Amino acid sequence: MASRQAVKAYLDLVSQACRAVLIFLKDNKIPHTVENIAIRKGQQKTPEFTKLNPMQKLPVLEDNGFVLTESDAILKYLATAYNVPEHWYPKMPEKRARVDEYTAWNHANTRTHISTLFLHEVLLPRMGHPTNPEMLEKALSDLDGTLDKLENMFLKRQAFLCGEDISLADLLAACELMQPLCGGRDILETRPKLLSWRSRVQSALSDSFDEAHAIVYRIRDNLNADKLYRYPKQSAL
Amino acid sequence: MASRQAVKAYLDLVSQACRAVLIFLKDNKIPHTVENIAIRKGQQKTPEFTKLNPMQKLPVLEDNGFVLTESDAILKYLATAYNVPEHWYPKMPEKRARVDEYTAWNHANTRTHISTLFLHEVLLPRMGHPTNPEMLEKALSDLDGTLDKLENMFLKRQAFLCGEDISLADLLAACELMQPLCGGRDILETRPKLLSWRSRVQSALSDSFDEAHAIVYRIRDNLNADKLYRYPKQSAL
Repeated sequence: MASRQAVKAYLDLVSQACRAVLIFLKDNKIPHTVENIAIRKGQQKTPEFTKLNPMQKLPVLEDNGFVLTESDAILKYLATAYNVPEHWYPKMPEKRARVDEYTAWNHANTRTHISTLFLHEVLLPRMGHPTNPEMLEKALSDLDGTLDKLENMFLKRQAFLCGEDISLADLLAACELMQPLCGGRDILETRPKLLSWRSRVQSALSDSFDEAHAIVYRIRDNLNADKLYRYPKQSAL
Repeated sequence: MASRQAVKAYLDLVSQACRAVLIFLKDNKIPHTVENIAIRKGQQKTPEFTKLNPMQKLPVLEDNGFVLTESDAILKYLATAYNVPEHWYPKMPEKRARVDEYTAWNHANTRTHISTLFLHEVLLPRMGHPTNPEMLEKALSDLDGTLDKLENMFLKRQAFLCGEDISLADLLAACELMQPLCGGRDILETRPKLLSWRSRVQSALSDSFDEAHAIVYRIRDNLNADKLYRYPKQSAL
């Protein structure tokens, strides 16, 4: 690996998928550089970036001229091409299939519902559209169904989503489930089973988790400060 | 493999993901039995099936007691655990990553838009809800964007979605893009590039493709006969 150039990751840490890629790179000490692409400034739509990824999406990985998109694919590629501990993406077909099963399931479940909640609670209000309470309620209820499945199916008899050790599935899911903090909401606060799981994920990742989420914590804290300023009587809360 | 039991696939061939699994099993001569689960009769919600897959979804694969859901994961597992030609899911990290990239991208793109079209053109009308032209138009326009990307990005410089040979990506995508036939619509008829690609996919798969799609052709033919009966003046079309 000595003659290999460091991989280059194009990221915006407001995106949950980008955080997952950065945490994986850091935690596994894969030599890398980060190019920040600010989605809020539309930097993923510049001609230069569009040439790199015509989909105009993040994250993107560049490894010695090989350009790859889609966080699932990036994480699995890094786990295969670099010397990372087996637990992330086990080689045994049955164990690997469990990780592939979650990462596939994630799209139409965790990803979809977190993204809808983020749209109604964070993005639309920022664009000047008042929150539609009915849509928000629907998003929260759909997400509740997904959280139930995470607790009662995936975590029913094991410490992590795909077994007794942390895998790519946990990393992707944990970053997703932090996303609503950007709207000031911790969706796990009434769910002790998922809270314990998140603690296990954070412990397994040491500092890289909090480092990648620094921007999320800052957004949440600014939001809380803003609420305090606008509604000082609630300060006791 | 001689001492191994045949794998058991729980399928409903009206589902595009189930057809992909069946084609893969047949084309690769993996010993298997099929258990038909009729979604229209709600058979995926019986207590017996729910015990097998609490998500109440198809397809499901059972291999010597190992139960797996999600078509992406099933196909990748079969490609890994059985002796199938390398082109389906190449071992080289960069080539494999291309297949993982498409199968991840598929969820929020091809899968989502085909599924929305199917909802508005097939499912809701069957449940007695008249088609909402605005919703149908939106679904078709979203799908058009995805078809553009398939042509101009994935197939830009190569014969198949992830390279010069057929992979799991083509199988999943081809089965998806046949789904609108159930509403009497061939979404590829004005797209010569995708039509050629579909022909290449069909040729590569010999009979297994048409066998798995027999039910789709039957639904389309019944629909056309029904239209002919209801609108005889259009019979010249």
